[in-house]
Amino acid sequence: MLRTHTCGELTLKQKSKQVTLCGWNIAQRNHGGLIFIDLKDRYGFTQIVFDPTHKKDLHAKAQKLGREDVLQVTGKVRYRGKNLENPNMATGQIEILADELTILSSSETLPIEMDDPDAVGDDLRLKYRYLDMRRQDMQNNFKTRHNTAQLIRQFLSSKNFLEIETPLLIKSTPEGARDYVVPSRVNPGKFYALPQSPQIYKQILMVSGFDRYFQLARCLRDEDLRQDRQPEHTQIDLEMSFVEVNDIFNLTEEMMQEIFSKILKNKLKLPFKKLSYKEAMEKYGTDKPDLRFNLELKDLTQEMSHSDFSVFKSVVDKGGIVKAINAEKSGELFSRKVIDKYVKYAQDVGAKGLAWMKMTDNGLEGSIVKFFNDKLQKQIIQKLNAQPGDVLFFCADKPKTTNEVMNKIRKRLGKELNLIKDEFNFCWITDFPLFEWNEDDKRWEMSHHMFCMPTQETMKFIEEDPSKVFCTQFDLVLNGEEMGSGSLRINRTDIQEKIMKVIGFSQKEAEERFGYLLESFKYGAPPHGGIGIGFDRLVALMLDLNDIREVIAFPKNKNAQSPIDNSPSELKTDQLDELSLKLNLKKK
Amino acid sequence: MLRTHTCGELTLKQKSKQVTLCGWNIAQRNHGGLIFIDLKDRYGFTQIVFDPTHKKDLHAKAQKLGREDVLQVTGKVRYRGKNLENPNMATGQIEILADELTILSSSETLPIEMDDPDAVGDDLRLKYRYLDMRRQDMQNNFKTRHNTAQLIRQFLSSKNFLEIETPLLIKSTPEGARDYVVPSRVNPGKFYALPQSPQIYKQILMVSGFDRYFQLARCLRDEDLRQDRQPEHTQIDLEMSFVEVNDIFNLTEEMMQEIFSKILKNKLKLPFKKLSYKEAMEKYGTDKPDLRFNLELKDLTQEMSHSDFSVFKSVVDKGGIVKAINAEKSGELFSRKVIDKYVKYAQDVGAKGLAWMKMTDNGLEGSIVKFFNDKLQKQIIQKLNAQPGDVLFFCADKPKTTNEVMNKIRKRLGKELNLIKDEFNFCWITDFPLFEWNEDDKRWEMSHHMFCMPTQETMKFIEEDPSKVFCTQFDLVLNGEEMGSGSLRINRTDIQEKIMKVIGFSQKEAEERFGYLLESFKYGAPPHGGIGIGFDRLVALMLDLNDIREVIAFPKNKNAQSPIDNSPSELKTDQLDELSLKLNLKKK
Repeated sequence: MLRTHTCGELTLKQKSKQVTLCGWNIAQRNHGGLIFIDLKDRYGFTQIVFDPTHKKDLHAKAQKLGREDVLQVTGKVRYRGKNLENPNMATGQIEILADELTILSSSETLPIEMDDPDAVGDDLRLKYRYLDMRRQDMQNNFKTRHNTAQLIRQFLSSKNFLEIETPLLIKSTPEGARDYVVPSRVNPGKFYALPQSPQIYKQILMVSGFDRYFQLARCLRDEDLRQDRQPEHTQIDLEMSFVEVNDIFNLTEEMMQEIFSKILKNKLKLPFKKLSYKEAMEKYGTDKPDLRFNLELKDLTQEMSHSDFSVFKSVVDKGGIVKAINAEKSGELFSRKVIDKYVKYAQDVGAKGLAWMKMTDNGLEGSIVKFFNDKLQKQIIQKLNAQPGDVLFFCADKPKTTNEVMNKIRKRLGKELNLIKDEFNFCWITDFPLFEWNEDDKRWEMSHHMFCMPTQETMKFIEEDPSKVFCTQFDLVLNGEEMGSGSLRINRTDIQEKIMKVIGFSQKEAEERFGYLLESFKYGAPPHGGIGIGFDRLVALMLDLNDIREVIAFPKNKNAQSPIDNSPSELKTDQLDELSLKLNLKKK
Repeated sequence: MLRTHTCGELTLKQKSKQVTLCGWNIAQRNHGGLIFIDLKDRYGFTQIVFDPTHKKDLHAKAQKLGREDVLQVTGKVRYRGKNLENPNMATGQIEILADELTILSSSETLPIEMDDPDAVGDDLRLKYRYLDMRRQDMQNNFKTRHNTAQLIRQFLSSKNFLEIETPLLIKSTPEGARDYVVPSRVNPGKFYALPQSPQIYKQILMVSGFDRYFQLARCLRDEDLRQDRQPEHTQIDLEMSFVEVNDIFNLTEEMMQEIFSKILKNKLKLPFKKLSYKEAMEKYGTDKPDLRFNLELKDLTQEMSHSDFSVFKSVVDKGGIVKAINAEKSGELFSRKVIDKYVKYAQDVGAKGLAWMKMTDNGLEGSIVKFFNDKLQKQIIQKLNAQPGDVLFFCADKPKTTNEVMNKIRKRLGKELNLIKDEFNFCWITDFPLFEWNEDDKRWEMSHHMFCMPTQETMKFIEEDPSKVFCTQFDLVLNGEEMGSGSLRINRTDIQEKIMKVIGFSQKEAEERFGYLLESFKYGAPPHGGIGIGFDRLVALMLDLNDIREVIAFPKNKNAQSPIDNSPSELKTDQLDELSLKLNLKKK
């Protein structure tokens, strides 16, 4: 090794010892004729002193050093002296009096501001990612990610799971998003797909008798990007045989408890809350509710069908819904100006408007109150449990719009009223419908994917009334973010065929797309189920980061480009030729 | 859970207990009016008894069961009875008297013979991989692979390595084989490459200050396939900052010792033997020598330049070499017929012929002996340490051919003379030349890759005489198989530029292909080095398997196709269109 110690470990225990350290020069000060350098590596930093009375040449050499030069320094550990200690750093009691200095690699003037990532544009941060990642908080992010990954592997190994790698070059899968594809040179005209998830392969591993499988699986989706989406992400992917839904809940909860306890010293309460899809939509307008605060939505559709307020009534008459939320004790905060901001926000996110009332000692007040008779006002007050000082917001629109808008209003209220508890609040969303009616095409579609087992109790309705069939699908939600989802899977051809019939999926189409999975069911497929959990997002939320790129070493930008290596890039014609391909660019 | 226990855990401890097991029916016997079933899962198997005097209907139902049906059986644990115990199985003392039986999934007639993989063609094994992998030896392979992977992760974590995922969608790299490429939909006409290894990214992680990185990295190469190559493989990939070559040796050796000790209870001797490239080529004709047996090659080129044997002399005159091997004490085994087989084999693998002599009490014998005078015969005897009863083989050809042939002859002798010790014999091959002269193009090429640091002592020859420059590259060899290779990397632009000049690599070309790595060197790149070790091959060798497909769940066949899912497959025209591509198939 080019060093005897790291920059994070020396204390007075090593006093007077000759040591060699390597690291980056992150700060340099001249003080009283001496030069002080903070030498940094992943493990911490150590103060180096160059004293001209000790080594004159060395002091002169140190004078010319620059920020981020990589140095090797040899010298003696000594006490900094009284009042010069820095109690905030592990090595704060000591410094190294330099005897030797080697510049292992010098740095040119830095192209970005190292210490203030917010001042650096996104693309520049990604282009100079090696500088960006030298910062302590980025180093900590990847350390947490590493520790979490290792912990998950140890936990699942202790539960008899085997990590088995599924292929990256696979057959195109019938999942939601677009596949990335890979042309085959040796099979001209044919393509592999990159996996959106190992779904089919992990099911086949269950049919193979592996009983319990997991993988920290690399998944790729050719989607248009958003803040929390990347072309590549990593999934905690697991599958178990001979289980019921509760077994997957228990295992996941225990795993999360282990992670949060060991990594964050945070004790999660088990079991996680369970909400049916229906209940979540009713109370929160979303199937990803943030349960760190209350503020439940109340449905007033029934009541408003009798109101004289034409805006509400006409919506209800056309099949729409009316929902309200009580921003408790917010009356004093909510000036007309603040309320107007909420109305504007509601319009920005898709509502036609946002009605409001204030509850006072004299009852409801506000410009629309007059359209509601006493009985209706009483009903509103009762249903929303309105107390003097509360502000009530109402939205009336198509069910989907109303729920979306009120979910956003609720979240904004939670934030601005400081209601969000500092906690990790997990919940399960259950009882999703198996089918969804597509009004445009007048046909049934799968709500989720093709492989989800219907619940035991509702399976009998598949042929008779698809709307009555629920599936074993469940979502895991943390602080309002979807962390993952799972289900029991279909393991019998007869059930799979009934479902395909409902959604009008032909035998031929099924055969082409995942016939190999259906065929495997013919030769002894155990009942099985599992879950996939977004690993990047989990780590990001653990670290209170809202962008998964903070925990991905080399993410892509919003155009799916990588500023560091300039990929994607053009191929040479002979490379295309070898792949039996030609470009087919549209003229613009 | 659908079971109370697994099929591998019940003993007399659970006697009289009511239990529920799930598993596959792998064998069924009628005996004395009873039906016995071996119920199997990943953990073992358990004998189930159906007794018509206990449950008549159940016995009738059991009669109709088939091989590989998935069953759930409830019943009482009981002692099998004296003389009926099976000491070879963990559950061999007990059986379950069945009270209930549920067929969870029944199996049709199996399309392959489950118990004899050799009788099943390769493609059929891959097509019905879920049946193939149900076999106990396959299950054990993946268990060993899992345990080895977890152990590596724990070991490296304990040494301060962080596992960091590098991207799968990257820029085309300048390595040996062809890249698989991925068209970008949102960047029409542009392509990502899939990584052949994380080489450049792991170096950038060192520039990022992560100090120690590892990954069990998925690597993809579009090569024409051989037995030990797959389009996808997994590499134990690691990189360290501030190290010398010995640090990488020590770490790797300690890791291997840990793996072999914990997984195989096999104690490896450290340090591993080290051979220079030159020495390996001289003694074994290969840089992947199998050191489990001796049989060193001897170079007789010098001596043969004075011989009257025109075959040898003319080869030497034309710059060829003569090498010999002493198949010690093999005289009795080596009839004329056996020797002829070796001659034929040498010709099959590229030699013009294979000369031979036998050492007897009367000195050398054989048809060519007469061409060598007494002095030369003495030299041969001495150099090969020939004793009565030994057989000597000679090959004369161009250096490359001679070495290749004699390596193969040596390996065959080792096998057929039963000289190969039952051990894991690791060695390091070191001191590779940095450059290689390309005789056809009359120019210098890199022997390995662009990023390999020259040795300190020979760096000064780069400009003056490239042939004198050695690199820090080293290979890890196990039992004659290359397991991996590593080196210190160049971390300074000035050295990189000198090397590029020697091989005539233009600044522009360098810029295009890996300019981002070179640019990172400008901003403080620490000295660093690392190694990549083939994980599939390691696990295969640990299990004494000669085909890595035995430890890969879903490998491709020799045509890079996956018989299980029929990938690669054709895309629809609109999918191609969306990717701005057209097929360009050659007419045949």
